[in-house]
Amino acid sequence: MSQHIEHPDYHHKQLTIGLFGFGVVGEGLYQVLKQTPSLKASIKRVCIKNPEKKRNAPAELFTTDRDELLNDEAINVIVEVIDDADAAFYIVKTALLGGKHVVSASKKMIAEHLTELLQLQQQTGQSFLYEASACASIPVIRNLEEYYDNDLLHSIQAIVNGSTNYILTKMFEEKLSYRDALLQAQQLGFAESNPKLDVEGYDAVNKWNNLLAHAYGIVTSPEKILFTGIQSVQAFDAQVAEERHYVIRLVAQAKKLESGKVAAFVLPQFVQASDHLSFVRNEYNGVVIESGFADKQFFYGKGAGSFPTASAVLSDISALRYDYRYEYKKLYHHTPGELTNDYYLKVYLSFENVEEVPKDKFEWIEEWHAREDRKYLVGVLHVQHLIDSDWWKTNGTSLVLLPNAIIESLDLQKLKKKSLELAGLQLHHGFKQW
Amino acid sequence: MSQHIEHPDYHHKQLTIGLFGFGVVGEGLYQVLKQTPSLKASIKRVCIKNPEKKRNAPAELFTTDRDELLNDEAINVIVEVIDDADAAFYIVKTALLGGKHVVSASKKMIAEHLTELLQLQQQTGQSFLYEASACASIPVIRNLEEYYDNDLLHSIQAIVNGSTNYILTKMFEEKLSYRDALLQAQQLGFAESNPKLDVEGYDAVNKWNNLLAHAYGIVTSPEKILFTGIQSVQAFDAQVAEERHYVIRLVAQAKKLESGKVAAFVLPQFVQASDHLSFVRNEYNGVVIESGFADKQFFYGKGAGSFPTASAVLSDISALRYDYRYEYKKLYHHTPGELTNDYYLKVYLSFENVEEVPKDKFEWIEEWHAREDRKYLVGVLHVQHLIDSDWWKTNGTSLVLLPNAIIESLDLQKLKKKSLELAGLQLHHGFKQW
Ligand SMILES: NC(=O)c1ccc[n+]([C@@H]2O[C@H](COP(=O)([O-])OP(=O)(O)OC[C@H]3O[C@@H](n4cnc5c(N)ncnc54)[C@H](OP(=O)(O)O)[C@@H]3O)[C@@H](O)[C@H]2O)c1
Ligand SMILES: NC(=O)c1ccc[n+]([C@@H]2O[C@H](COP(=O)([O-])OP(=O)(O)OC[C@H]3O[C@@H](n4cnc5c(N)ncnc54)[C@H](OP(=O)(O)O)[C@@H]3O)[C@@H](O)[C@H]2O)c1
Repeated sequence: MSQHIEHPDYHHKQLTIGLFGFGVVGEGLYQVLKQTPSLKASIKRVCIKNPEKKRNAPAELFTTDRDELLNDEAINVIVEVIDDADAAFYIVKTALLGGKHVVSASKKMIAEHLTELLQLQQQTGQSFLYEASACASIPVIRNLEEYYDNDLLHSIQAIVNGSTNYILTKMFEEKLSYRDALLQAQQLGFAESNPKLDVEGYDAVNKWNNLLAHAYGIVTSPEKILFTGIQSVQAFDAQVAEERHYVIRLVAQAKKLESGKVAAFVLPQFVQASDHLSFVRNEYNGVVIESGFADKQFFYGKGAGSFPTASAVLSDISALRYDYRYEYKKLYHHTPGELTNDYYLKVYLSFENVEEVPKDKFEWIEEWHAREDRKYLVGVLHVQHLIDSDWWKTNGTSLVLLPNAIIESLDLQKLKKKSLELAGLQLHHGFKQW
Repeated sequence: MSQHIEHPDYHHKQLTIGLFGFGVVGEGLYQVLKQTPSLKASIKRVCIKNPEKKRNAPAELFTTDRDELLNDEAINVIVEVIDDADAAFYIVKTALLGGKHVVSASKKMIAEHLTELLQLQQQTGQSFLYEASACASIPVIRNLEEYYDNDLLHSIQAIVNGSTNYILTKMFEEKLSYRDALLQAQQLGFAESNPKLDVEGYDAVNKWNNLLAHAYGIVTSPEKILFTGIQSVQAFDAQVAEERHYVIRLVAQAKKLESGKVAAFVLPQFVQASDHLSFVRNEYNGVVIESGFADKQFFYGKGAGSFPTASAVLSDISALRYDYRYEYKKLYHHTPGELTNDYYLKVYLSFENVEEVPKDKFEWIEEWHAREDRKYLVGVLHVQHLIDSDWWKTNGTSLVLLPNAIIESLDLQKLKKKSLELAGLQLHHGFKQW
């Protein structure tokens, strides 16, 4: 009986796609589209860089001339999944100005051009969708856009980089070496072409930059966000984590402080076993959203890989049939949020050489441990200091946040006293040289 | 700088709400709205049943005359959160026909009138939103509508009833008695006014009925879906679960079979520790969506309670500012799915009295256990038999599905042989009387 119901505004827009890129994501999309005929979307032409490469698709699909796609009137959707951010921006801009909708997965390009891309969307009225660029298969942008569109978003904590999470899992659970773990991630298609982007946190901070616009209406740039990757994390740190029943994850977070301003950063963190993020292993991503009244919500799914990423691109393509656009409600319809660096973080810091650690920069040091192989401390630093310096991520120094690391304000008198007591204690723990 | 961007189609529709019900959810919404002034939504009038009850809100807000809300031209949104399904349907129908948008949390009313409600939406063009009626704070309807709108949805498994999950958690983790656990759930505001609705699975199957429309475009009715609750689950079953490293959950599921048709039911199930649903404790709900290419996705959040439910109502209200409607894409824009009962389930069955168990109805019995206090078996039953009979949930018999319980087709020759071998074995295991 249900078959006979006709919807009043039934329409199936025919989508004709010009695809840029035929790598991990591009070829994945090609395969996925072949298996979803009901979508009525077809790839008319594919632009790639290297005409010599062998492709698993008919040769006549391919070109190296981008104008053959951008100037083709019959193509109404450009899907951009290349690994060159500058070329990607040119393609996206030209396509939007040419009256085409665009779907993209390039978080780097979006992060570098967010303001212009917002203006282009307003100017042209075209849709620019990029769900795959955030947590691949998890519809996090869509949910932030559509669901948390009031002023009750307390915080978001997320694992947004599948490669580093894969590497951390393999290193700590299977005791793989860092190199072997990275190699596996690359072979499985999770890693960016340039592994530095993943490992040093650039990919995560780019994604975080873009998500801040949808979460809080904050339009900023990655250089303004405190971040690092997992390049300094040591086997020693994993051992300490284990002793304390923690796991280490690279966590992107944003939190509305009591001042109303937003703290946002991407740093390695000790995660408690009871924390939803400890559930997130291998190349999976996870997002914990804490909102007024609704308590914690947790979204989990594959954060990288050919098909999971392609399936997010597919969902964006599918949404274009109904002329879906991001509304950036928190930016345009509310008072946009504002970033702040005026707060403190409680950190674990491991190091070889105590001279490298500027102890006077700590507001408070509450633990000292000197082991034979390595030393560590637990203390509190002002965020501005972390932004202004890099000693904490160089020279073999490794910083990992404690759980609930954000401290909005300090009772300094109390802490100074505590610190002094600890300064006495340290002598008994192998810090005689300090 | 972002503050200066003006969105081209900026609009803030003023919402004037007529609220029906001021119980757990209604009063929650009243509180939540007071704390979200940016929404520009205000409650003009509240209709309740009992004029004598003390209310935490100005007396002049309240009335017992529904027409004062339904006939008020200034009210453009009706929020219906009462616990009387018949009255609720009248209210929703009258409001839609009267040109008002409606937000509701009444899964029972929606399940009972789904076809009419679909027709009313088409006829009137008004929005009818009911996210809170599914998994309270988890935006599952919205995600099924917006994100999985292609034909790649393999399966959904979900914990959709917060009360039963709370009771199961308290009984099995804290060894509370069933009565005490239920009492706690009621005091905390999770339980339906009539506990039978929760405990016997009616609430879960109502929700499942409604979600099937958004997931697969299936419009059916709860009587056609195989279901039970947790009323028969025994401490003994929990003990067996523990021995096998399982937990017991009331799981609602739907799966596309190889035939293309959909199996759907709500039954208690043994859940493995590695399963996402084992993560879901207390009054939380969880949804695992398995789709082609994207692998498994997991959504988790509070599934009941005053504020979590009110916050889902709030999100629906907020969506009305942008004239959001469900499109029921899988029903109207695709070939809708079709339910089937032609498959088998692998079940655990515990019982006191072996005579109550019609062993000839089993396709296959693979384990027998007779303990001093109680007996159990593991075997395979055809679903149609479970639908047509009720011995498996009466007379102290308790049925719990095994993990991956669905069996699409059986190699009967092989199984018969196995069954006969087991029939021999059973004599050694205390089933001499059979
Ligand atoms: N892999 C993932 O799991 C994943 C997940 C989320 C997002 N992403 C994003 O998706 C994008 C693509 O990633 P990928 O992993 O698919 O990269 P990839 O495997 O390295 O493929 C890159 C593709 O881009 C093409 N290309 C590069 N420059 C071009 C240009 N100027 N014009 C036309 N084609 C050009 C390459 O052409 P040739 O084939 O001729 O070399 C290749 O086909 C990136 O932005 C990445 O950040 C990837
Ligand atoms: N509680 C939850 O966690 C939860 C979660 C999801 C969905 N829901 C759904 O939300 C709805 C409300 O649940 P609840 O827990 O808030 O129930 P509740 O606490 O029992 O409150 C019911 C309210 O409805 C009013 N009412 C009953 N019949 C009425 C009528 N004919 N006209 C006007 N008002 C009437 C009652 O009035 P009086 O105050 O005068 O008695 C009372 O205020 C139900 O459909 C339920 O299934 C509840």
